[in-house]
Amino acid sequence: MLMVELKENERIDDLEIRGFRIIQNPLYFCFGCDAVLLSDFARPRKRDRVMDLCTGTGIVPILMAAKEKGSSFEAIEINTYMAEMAGRSAALNEISDTLHVTEGDIRNIKELYKNDSFDYLTVNPPYIKENSGLLNPDDAINVARHEMMLSLKDVIKAASYLLKSRGGFAMVHKPFRLPEIIYIMKQHKIEPKRLRMVQPKAGAEPTMMLIEGVKDGGEFMKVEPPLIMYEEDGSYTEEVLRIYGKM
Amino acid sequence: MLMVELKENERIDDLEIRGFRIIQNPLYFCFGCDAVLLSDFARPRKRDRVMDLCTGTGIVPILMAAKEKGSSFEAIEINTYMAEMAGRSAALNEISDTLHVTEGDIRNIKELYKNDSFDYLTVNPPYIKENSGLLNPDDAINVARHEMMLSLKDVIKAASYLLKSRGGFAMVHKPFRLPEIIYIMKQHKIEPKRLRMVQPKAGAEPTMMLIEGVKDGGEFMKVEPPLIMYEEDGSYTEEVLRIYGKM
Repeated sequence: MLMVELKENERIDDLEIRGFRIIQNPLYFCFGCDAVLLSDFARPRKRDRVMDLCTGTGIVPILMAAKEKGSSFEAIEINTYMAEMAGRSAALNEISDTLHVTEGDIRNIKELYKNDSFDYLTVNPPYIKENSGLLNPDDAINVARHEMMLSLKDVIKAASYLLKSRGGFAMVHKPFRLPEIIYIMKQHKIEPKRLRMVQPKAGAEPTMMLIEGVKDGGEFMKVEPPLIMYEEDGSYTEEVLRIYGKM
Repeated sequence: MLMVELKENERIDDLEIRGFRIIQNPLYFCFGCDAVLLSDFARPRKRDRVMDLCTGTGIVPILMAAKEKGSSFEAIEINTYMAEMAGRSAALNEISDTLHVTEGDIRNIKELYKNDSFDYLTVNPPYIKENSGLLNPDDAINVARHEMMLSLKDVIKAASYLLKSRGGFAMVHKPFRLPEIIYIMKQHKIEPKRLRMVQPKAGAEPTMMLIEGVKDGGEFMKVEPPLIMYEEDGSYTEEVLRIYGKM
């Protein structure tokens, strides 16, 4: 087994798929079910070059690599410590040759990557809209949860820049922001093509949504059946067990 | 009971709410559950002045009048015969003083109504996008089902013109056109505020959607629990029975 350095408060979690593991620090941001659902929802082709924005721990590209959804992965993270930790998770899984983590600010994406250079892009961005101004990028929890460092527009603009024409874009977000999301995607030539609401129960309000778009795609969006997390008795649904079973 | 003239092939259907009835002609377009669901989803205040675009038989404002959702109703229909028949339905229900049906083309809305003159607007527009050009407006079935006479943009533009600031807009449509709908609504200052998918069953793809917007409203859309039509055994759900019970 490959050994990597663990820093104070860090732990290694088993992802229960093909022996893949991840380093996390509970004092910072740990991945949630949104990242797991996104890695299931996203559907790059096997040979695609895939970018993950706002990668955090690197959970999304690590799960995608484990599932062989894509052939090579780039990931960007603004927080210096998180970016370095995600790089160590790549090393831990011996995939440093196919997953590169870059510390960087996606608002400066043009300085980091060429345009039209990715086949598919995933992003689990900050959910909560904030107009607050200057913040310390080392405040990893707040940066991950709030739009302190970048707006939805920054994210989608960067995605549109990075994607090839006909390239795919998959994002997990909160349903209440769907109008903004659709509007900004369309403004940036990423046509929404597939939407899936995530509901705690069959008759409940959705608490998350998964959306896929295609750069330069034509109009027509498939709204899939909702992904229901729990049965009436509180146990996981078959689909959630399937997703976590191949997490 | 008030007598109104019935023309060839016309029939009178009981709406099973406070004795309200409607004239329909099966050779033309008869109302479907979309109109019934829209009249349930829409929520004008009791004293609102309400407009219905593409009114067809007049089913939506007649149901709204029966439910006392609004105080006075205007309705526009492009087909001469349908507009006249809807007017006779208003007379049949003795509500000609509160429901006026106008034969007209909403692309010429400025010639028909003043701007900012309605508190709430409902519309059950044609669903299918068509780029076909000249068509006979007397072809009522095709006009009702296809965008032969007017586009989604025409509908939303007219709605935005007619509504007061903070006025409400409720529409039933097909989920696959949600991105266009949201984009055009936002372009015309009608902010999407409430969305409800309509699914045949709990785990099924939605086949219809209900959306409400507010002119000059702020960003934040509530996605409601899906409206599920049938139980697993094929019987109507309690909610559908409630909606139809007070149809």
